[in-house]
Amino acid sequence: MDALLGATARTRLRRLPEKATTERRALYDVLDAGLVAHVGLVDGHHPFVVPCGYARDRDRILLHGSTGSRMMRSLAAGRAACVTVTILDGLVYAKSLFNSSMNYRSAMVLGRAGAVAEEDKEAALHVIADHLMPGRWADARPALPRELAGTLIVAMTLDEASVKISDGPPDDDAEDADWPAWSGVLPLALQPGRPQSADGHTVPDYVEARWR
Amino acid sequence: MDALLGATARTRLRRLPEKATTERRALYDVLDAGLVAHVGLVDGHHPFVVPCGYARDRDRILLHGSTGSRMMRSLAAGRAACVTVTILDGLVYAKSLFNSSMNYRSAMVLGRAGAVAEEDKEAALHVIADHLMPGRWADARPALPRELAGTLIVAMTLDEASVKISDGPPDDDAEDADWPAWSGVLPLALQPGRPQSADGHTVPDYVEARWR
Repeated sequence: MDALLGATARTRLRRLPEKATTERRALYDVLDAGLVAHVGLVDGHHPFVVPCGYARDRDRILLHGSTGSRMMRSLAAGRAACVTVTILDGLVYAKSLFNSSMNYRSAMVLGRAGAVAEEDKEAALHVIADHLMPGRWADARPALPRELAGTLIVAMTLDEASVKISDGPPDDDAEDADWPAWSGVLPLALQPGRPQSADGHTVPDYVEARWR
Repeated sequence: MDALLGATARTRLRRLPEKATTERRALYDVLDAGLVAHVGLVDGHHPFVVPCGYARDRDRILLHGSTGSRMMRSLAAGRAACVTVTILDGLVYAKSLFNSSMNYRSAMVLGRAGAVAEEDKEAALHVIADHLMPGRWADARPALPRELAGTLIVAMTLDEASVKISDGPPDDDAEDADWPAWSGVLPLALQPGRPQSADGHTVPDYVEARWR
């Protein structure tokens, strides 16, 4: 089976030109469709990859966490980082395992993040909330000063990024056409289930609408 | 909202002791439940994070790709790597955004991989196929010598690994109990959809069974 992605060469990544609106749109679409990013950092010459909730804010990606988080402090300090978002769309059953693969969309963003200024934190949290929990901002208990103080938000621009999309049916070899096994795709998607209430309140529409 | 995972300090990772069977079982469960790993490598002091299909084989993780893949060649050469698998289980709506979070299971494996020997490649591919496409091995057209030659498989032991699991209902502050917003969890799971056939063969039971 083919691996999902083979290239890690930085040289293959293009600084997305302003005119390449198609590719930029594809990058935005992948980032807007995901919920969890995998953040890569280097510590003592060793790579570390940590999952993190995120949101796209115009031409940058926002990550948030506790001021006590080593990952967040490293990001805020501007350490070299890679933020990768992958959405798995299906398993591709070719006649041969060699031609079998996965359908997916993946975005990789390289660069150095920086801390969002104190006075911009609440607006950044609003963007993150609107991405991860649309509709929730107006309902949630507003952030307390000590909560904002304990939250670190970092932003990384989308200047250096790549998108890879694999979709469609299996790409079988012509000589495999008569092989007597089914060829096709099993679609996969992250699906919401029935909300589990922790209190007596009615499930709000913005949560109900996600799973129905 | 809390970030998914805060710690990247290598010192916080435990070399899993043989007696810690509970933690080892949890590690296996997370790795066995996922389909895509995010592989971290360092190139020119910069981290790169790339998605890759994988499988657990007893006490090691197997990754595969083309011999032309730079990522695969770096792994085969024993470069320091981090393999992270994350399964998102739900969005946790607390009364405050600060206490809101995600439910997830994540495994992080650190180390250096090595190439699987030529004579062990086919058995390793069988393990990978059984994980990603259970039931398919017996049906698929067998691998040709040139396909095996063009495939690189690497293995990394699970000696240094950590597991983090976040589950359950929101952890609301006592003073938020009367806040008039719903509190609860929206479960999320990767769900198969109706198979999309690329030929006239009947969808096999091992594919049908995954989505019904």
